[in-house]
Amino acid sequence: MSADQRFNLIAEKLGYSFDGDIKIGGNYVPLVRNGNEIYIRGQIPRVGDTVVVTGRAGADATLVQARTAAKVCAMRALALLQRSVGSLDEIKRLLRMNLYVQCAADFTQQSEVADGASEVLFFVLGEAGAHTRSSIGVYQLPKNATVELDLIAVV
Amino acid sequence: MSADQRFNLIAEKLGYSFDGDIKIGGNYVPLVRNGNEIYIRGQIPRVGDTVVVTGRAGADATLVQARTAAKVCAMRALALLQRSVGSLDEIKRLLRMNLYVQCAADFTQQSEVADGASEVLFFVLGEAGAHTRSSIGVYQLPKNATVELDLIAVV
Amino acid sequence: MSADQRFNLIAEKLGYSFDGDIKIGGNYVPLVRNGNEIYIRGQIPRVGDTVVVTGRAGADATLVQARTAAKVCAMRALALLQRSVGSLDEIKRLLRMNLYVQCAADFTQQSEVADGASEVLFFVLGEAGAHTRSSIGVYQLPKNATVELDLIAVV
Repeated sequence: MSADQRFNLIAEKLGYSFDGDIKIGGNYVPLVRNGNEIYIRGQIPRVGDTVVVTGRAGADATLVQARTAAKVCAMRALALLQRSVGSLDEIKRLLRMNLYVQCAADFTQQSEVADGASEVLFFVLGEAGAHTRSSIGVYQLPKNATVELDLIAVV
Repeated sequence: MSADQRFNLIAEKLGYSFDGDIKIGGNYVPLVRNGNEIYIRGQIPRVGDTVVVTGRAGADATLVQARTAAKVCAMRALALLQRSVGSLDEIKRLLRMNLYVQCAADFTQQSEVADGASEVLFFVLGEAGAHTRSSIGVYQLPKNATVELDLIAVV
Repeated sequence: MSADQRFNLIAEKLGYSFDGDIKIGGNYVPLVRNGNEIYIRGQIPRVGDTVVVTGRAGADATLVQARTAAKVCAMRALALLQRSVGSLDEIKRLLRMNLYVQCAADFTQQSEVADGASEVLFFVLGEAGAHTRSSIGVYQLPKNATVELDLIAVV
C-alpha cells in the first residue's frame, strides 16, 4: 500500500475530505522549499470553511477532541505535501513538528494531544514519518482553534 | 527600487530609525548561518532602549498597535540581515516566520497581527519575501513585549 | 579540556546524572539528522523518572529554579547529541534554541531563564555553542514542566 493510499484511509476514518482547497488566509504561502527541505506553514484543524475543533483543551474540548484536531492538522500538512511533490512516497523524513495546544491553565497532556498527529504521520509515511517534536500549551490560537501544527519535511 | 530603498521607506513610514545598535541581551548571537540559511533570533519591538508596544493584544494593546509591533519586529530582522549580507537584494527566500502574540484570553486575531509583519516582508523583499508562518497566542513575552518574531532566511 | 569533560563538570555541578536512559514518551524520535543538521526534540527538565522543576515561573518556581530547569534541559539535549555523534567536540554550531517558559501572567523574565541554558551551551561547546534563540512565555507544558527547550545543531 502506498503512502497516498494510507492517507486516504485516514481521511475516511476521520470522516473528512482533504480534496478541496486548503484554505489559507493572509499574504504568505502554504509551503517553501530550500534544497531538500520543505517548510509547511502552521495548520489549524480547518476543513473547508469550518474549524472543526475550537476552544481550550481540558475545558471546552476533551483530550479525544484535541487529538482529533491534531490528526486533522497533520492530514492538512500531508495534503499540502502531496500536492507539492506529487506523491507522499517522495517524503524521506520529517525534521520537526511543532504542536501548539490552546489549553486550560492546568491541562498538562500536550504530549498526548501531539500523539494524535504523530500517529497519523507514522501510519501514512512509515519509517519516513519519524520526527522530532515540541508540544507546547498556549493561551490562544487563530480562530480559537484548539491546535496548531507546523512541520518541516525532507524529500 | 532596491530592497534596501524599500526598507528605508517603511522605516520612514513607521517613524523609527533602525540605524543604531540593534540591542541584544544575554550571551547569544543575533544570527547564525549554515550553508545558505540564516537563522535570526527572536525579535521584540524594541527601538533603541524602548520596547514600543507592550502588554496584551486585545486588552492593553489594540490590533492596530499589535500589528505595528509585528512590523517593527520584521524591520529589526531585516536590519540584521542587511548588516550581515550587505544588501537585502541578496535575500532569495524566507523559510519560516514564527510570530508570538502576548494576548488576552479571548483574542483570536493572531493571524491578523502577523499580517503586519508579512506585509513588510513582502513589500521590502518582493517575491523573495514569500514565507511560511505560524502565529501563536502566548501568555507572556520578554520585557512584556506584545509580539516576538523569529525568521529563517535563504541567501 | 574537551567539550565532553566540560559536560561532565556541569552535570556534577547540577548534581544530576545524564548517564541513564533519556526517557521519551510517544511514538517519535529523540533526534533526526538531515545533512549536517541535527534536530533535537523538545526537552523538559526530566532526570530519570522525575521532572525536577514544575509549575509556573514567577509563582510556583523562582527565577533561579526556572534557570536550573533550563540548564537541565540543555544538558539533556547535549547528552542526546553526545550519544548520537560520539563526542560533543563534533558539534560545529547551533542554529536555534527555542525556550518555552510556563509562567505567571506578569512574569517577563523569559530571557533571564533562557540565559541558564545559553550559559551551559557556551560553557560546554565554546564558540561552537553560539546560537540564536527565542524565549517565549507559555500557558502550560507537558507534565507541568516549568521549561521546555528544543535545539538544532550543526555537525
